[in-house]
Amino acid sequence: MKLKAIADSIGARLKGNPDCLINGLSPLERAKAGDLSFLSHRQYKKYLGTTGASAVIIGAEDEAACTLNALISENPRLSLAKVAKLFEADSTLPGIHPTALIGENCEIADFVSIGAYTVLGNRCKVGAGTVLKSRVTLYDDVKLGANCLIHSGAVIGSDGFGFANDKGAWVKMPHLGGVSIGNNVEIGANTAIDRGFLEDTTIGDGVIIDNLVQVGHNVSIGARTAIAGCVAIAGSTSIGESCLIGGGASIAGHIQIADHVHITAVSSVNHSLALRGVYSSGFPAKASAVWRKNVARFQYLDEMAKRLRHLERLMEEE
Amino acid sequence: MKLKAIADSIGARLKGNPDCLINGLSPLERAKAGDLSFLSHRQYKKYLGTTGASAVIIGAEDEAACTLNALISENPRLSLAKVAKLFEADSTLPGIHPTALIGENCEIADFVSIGAYTVLGNRCKVGAGTVLKSRVTLYDDVKLGANCLIHSGAVIGSDGFGFANDKGAWVKMPHLGGVSIGNNVEIGANTAIDRGFLEDTTIGDGVIIDNLVQVGHNVSIGARTAIAGCVAIAGSTSIGESCLIGGGASIAGHIQIADHVHITAVSSVNHSLALRGVYSSGFPAKASAVWRKNVARFQYLDEMAKRLRHLERLMEEE
Amino acid sequence: MKLKAIADSIGARLKGNPDCLINGLSPLERAKAGDLSFLSHRQYKKYLGTTGASAVIIGAEDEAACTLNALISENPRLSLAKVAKLFEADSTLPGIHPTALIGENCEIADFVSIGAYTVLGNRCKVGAGTVLKSRVTLYDDVKLGANCLIHSGAVIGSDGFGFANDKGAWVKMPHLGGVSIGNNVEIGANTAIDRGFLEDTTIGDGVIIDNLVQVGHNVSIGARTAIAGCVAIAGSTSIGESCLIGGGASIAGHIQIADHVHITAVSSVNHSLALRGVYSSGFPAKASAVWRKNVARFQYLDEMAKRLRHLERLMEEE
Repeated sequence: MKLKAIADSIGARLKGNPDCLINGLSPLERAKAGDLSFLSHRQYKKYLGTTGASAVIIGAEDEAACTLNALISENPRLSLAKVAKLFEADSTLPGIHPTALIGENCEIADFVSIGAYTVLGNRCKVGAGTVLKSRVTLYDDVKLGANCLIHSGAVIGSDGFGFANDKGAWVKMPHLGGVSIGNNVEIGANTAIDRGFLEDTTIGDGVIIDNLVQVGHNVSIGARTAIAGCVAIAGSTSIGESCLIGGGASIAGHIQIADHVHITAVSSVNHSLALRGVYSSGFPAKASAVWRKNVARFQYLDEMAKRLRHLERLMEEE
Repeated sequence: MKLKAIADSIGARLKGNPDCLINGLSPLERAKAGDLSFLSHRQYKKYLGTTGASAVIIGAEDEAACTLNALISENPRLSLAKVAKLFEADSTLPGIHPTALIGENCEIADFVSIGAYTVLGNRCKVGAGTVLKSRVTLYDDVKLGANCLIHSGAVIGSDGFGFANDKGAWVKMPHLGGVSIGNNVEIGANTAIDRGFLEDTTIGDGVIIDNLVQVGHNVSIGARTAIAGCVAIAGSTSIGESCLIGGGASIAGHIQIADHVHITAVSSVNHSLALRGVYSSGFPAKASAVWRKNVARFQYLDEMAKRLRHLERLMEEE
Repeated sequence: MKLKAIADSIGARLKGNPDCLINGLSPLERAKAGDLSFLSHRQYKKYLGTTGASAVIIGAEDEAACTLNALISENPRLSLAKVAKLFEADSTLPGIHPTALIGENCEIADFVSIGAYTVLGNRCKVGAGTVLKSRVTLYDDVKLGANCLIHSGAVIGSDGFGFANDKGAWVKMPHLGGVSIGNNVEIGANTAIDRGFLEDTTIGDGVIIDNLVQVGHNVSIGARTAIAGCVAIAGSTSIGESCLIGGGASIAGHIQIADHVHITAVSSVNHSLALRGVYSSGFPAKASAVWRKNVARFQYLDEMAKRLRHLERLMEEE
């Protein structure tokens, strides 16, 4: 492919040789002649001078420093996504695999792909262009919008974890709600999304959810929120639009999280967050010997605080 | 359905119009005429005066404050479970789906439901009334009691994570045990329960386990213990009866946890807990700028404690 | 089986009666006549005097204290693995189950076992002696070496969680890489390993990965590293050889971890670790009332540190 054709296809400005031939995409530090590359992170800028790439996707701010053929973009990461799309050889075809099982009264739109051994319960809806990979389960009453992508092993619509306690024994709360998922939603491998108790668990348009995420019953997730791997969201919690939830984070049940909240990886949210902003509660790992000493002191932090206050009073009295 | 019929069916005391017609169940704040509703949490009590519901399930303590038709119950949550059961339209039928695969020498009791693409190894037992949803795997030698419910994607009886180290290389410990699960157990979607090394991993009667939970080899879980989503239980640990393990909690291997222990969400237990009670180790997320400052100080907490002690000594000497 | 035959088979030194008959393997505290047992942990040494076992596997350091028939081994745990292998009745047979689906242009070596409802995409390779249990998914371009074991529910090669942001909307980065897995690798139930963006996600020889682990795109894991259950590894991170990653640990993206690093359970690593050693960030659960007091103080730790410094200055001035 000629660089000019790529530039035109993705809407980037070309600097350099329009006839430069591009055979593939490659990271800067391992790119060779014929490769188009990119600057994914500032830390890789040092490779711009030494890369073997024939061309590179960059932002205007790096144009002066770049002596290679370049595609100049206002959003280089978006341009990279568009180029990768040109080189993709996706084997997913529209159609329902003969081993896929579709329950009663389901509505499957056009251009849907349903993979091998995927099982749909009754009264499910799947919007146009949506892809369910192999080995997905939709329980009854799961609605998927258009252009969604559901990865293998995902289970959507399993019963919420709701029980009454009858003198020590757990009595199951039958779950009468389903799951409603918007358009352009991606759901990762082995992720589980529970059905609602009386109303649907709801996932807004453009939400992206990574692998091994747990979404409890009656949860609502606003449009364009991104949820990284291994996040756990307990039941009846409402998350706003355009939030970022880092990997391994945990969110308690029955709370409300505002729009544009960023929860950093492995943080644990146990109360509502009414204001946009960045929230954290993770500790970085340290050498264990040091860590253990500090943890041991932490067990007495309340006492330390009181002793500090006591000393302050003694000093004030002097 | 008339309110009187519901009251009789669930054993609640009726206050108000016995002929009131009920068409469905709905949360207080969105209930309309024809709906039966309930007070799931004290924070919703404010809606009791304004709800459009035709009737409400409450405890005796709220009877005076309630001017609606009401079902008065000693255990309103249990009554709610019973009412939801009346409105349930479960599509699960007894029977073995034609695509389910049953290994050799299995014993499948009556009234069992085994879903599509579910695979049972050899020598498995499934008790009466037990339901395995679609896409469940039981390895060899897994015994399930009566009236259990196993959700899609669950894997029961996979090899425990046990290896010997032979000069740097890992040598697998073959696992000769199986898994024994009692009656009335529910196991969530994509949960994994490993087989024992020599003896069975055991799960007692009435245990409830949510989605994406990991139960290691040789673990024993006492009757009626509840385990929320994304909990990790390492191998050879014994958990007592009627425990509550909050979502995202982690429990180390080779420890004993007494009956009636409550571990709050995201806590990490690394030593035996011999006494009933509530245990925690989670931190709530805070604004990241504040959080980072405190974390930075934490790295020097041991030093701070020593400096505090030093100051105290100086003061004592004066 | 005679004890002598077992000793010869596993290469252990026999002490006592070579004709002692062994029918099975059992833990020390529950072993009976005919059982071979072992000392798995120092805490069980007390049972050596009272066990009903007919023989025991021990190290030379316990030989003097042991009056039973014994198999003396330089690596008792390795000997135990070898003995367990003798008693194993594994039902896994080589062969491709008739319900397994193999994509186009796959290369399947000899002595491979592929279980029921397992799905392979296009251009996958499976090395000799490798076992894929039932209900595994390999996406396109996944290469498995020889003698690997992949447990049920594992998903290998799902799309990495990579998106560009286009004015608030997420645009998927098509993933052109695959997954390359070495020889002698074990991957646990319901574990997910994402494909790389341009190059393969790579897992070295002899790596062992437990259940419900998340491995992000472009991750590289060095040979013989062991990863316990529920670990989350974010994208583009490189982990060295012979590392130990404890259960529930989280590892951030775009970092490098040296060889022989041990990360203890539930720790969270958010920066590169260039030196071998043991690293931690977990807190052990404590009685909640005490825990909450200390957490409340932690919110003011930075302030406490400043107050302490202030007191020190006052003392210095005196």
